[in-house]
Amino acid sequence: MHPGSTPPQLLQSRLFFRGRKFNYEVNRLKLPNGAEGEWECVRHPGGALVIPVTEDGQLVLVRQYRFTVKGCLLEFPAGTVETFESPLETIQREIEEETGYRAATWQKLGQFFLAPGYSDEIIYAFLARDLVKLENPPEGDEDEQIETVLMRPEELHKAILDQEPVDAKSIAAFFLALPHLS
Amino acid sequence: MHPGSTPPQLLQSRLFFRGRKFNYEVNRLKLPNGAEGEWECVRHPGGALVIPVTEDGQLVLVRQYRFTVKGCLLEFPAGTVETFESPLETIQREIEEETGYRAATWQKLGQFFLAPGYSDEIIYAFLARDLVKLENPPEGDEDEQIETVLMRPEELHKAILDQEPVDAKSIAAFFLALPHLS
Repeated sequence: MHPGSTPPQLLQSRLFFRGRKFNYEVNRLKLPNGAEGEWECVRHPGGALVIPVTEDGQLVLVRQYRFTVKGCLLEFPAGTVETFESPLETIQREIEEETGYRAATWQKLGQFFLAPGYSDEIIYAFLARDLVKLENPPEGDEDEQIETVLMRPEELHKAILDQEPVDAKSIAAFFLALPHLS
Repeated sequence: MHPGSTPPQLLQSRLFFRGRKFNYEVNRLKLPNGAEGEWECVRHPGGALVIPVTEDGQLVLVRQYRFTVKGCLLEFPAGTVETFESPLETIQREIEEETGYRAATWQKLGQFFLAPGYSDEIIYAFLARDLVKLENPPEGDEDEQIETVLMRPEELHKAILDQEPVDAKSIAAFFLALPHLS
């Protein structure tokens, strides 16, 4: 049997918390075998991510503090898709806020689910070229403490394999970008 | 300034929901610039993932229904680290439950944060070889509808680039495994 042929039946969905950027739901499901239980889910509007490439082939990343894990991670610039925004509009705003660069050429790399065990967030990944550094970049979110980091693709490759703290979305997006970086 | 030098101050942490596998917290933070706000966080015990490699070089994946996204995804076998388990013990249990294979040789590939914007989950990734198919595999979680899929590394590589639905942790772990698969 194909596992998708008999999805669980949703008996009840309760919105438990309405957050600033996403909501938290508790769902009561009835499984195909008749068992019932509760499964929690982050309902997320999606995230957009960019791999910016400078004229001399360097990648623009950000190092930022994440309170969830009490540490700094190396990530590609990214942000939550806001109401009335497309993922491309989101990331064209975020790249300027987070790095101070504007990009003229955009290419869609693909999309993937981030944490489907408990979240419906989709990450939309883009590649951006023809960067210019803005003289007066827009201010970012007040909660973000961000440092811009430039790395060559082979340096980032080594950093990931050497276990520098990099998050799953940045590694997955880098994988999608590799055929375009050589 | 290094972004980690002035972390936000935690003013209050409220446990909002105690789930079956993880908890949901709402935290009140004071930022270095004096602003205050609430940030939500999934508190997760961690996940363990395995890339099982058969004797003839095929990878063992699972296709499973995810109610969060109402669809089937291609993923590597994985599971939540339970109390008193190490990540290796978790995944040695899960590989048998999800695929019916037992592996004799285990190698740690590395670890990464899954969704640090709202979760502290760490994924611990392993490579497993010397597989034997169990005659009587243990029963898996009743909520899991799982189909085993065997693919060559180059087939999986193509499937990811062709945008077959694969999740971020599986793509990131595949990236960590690539140097060991050639």
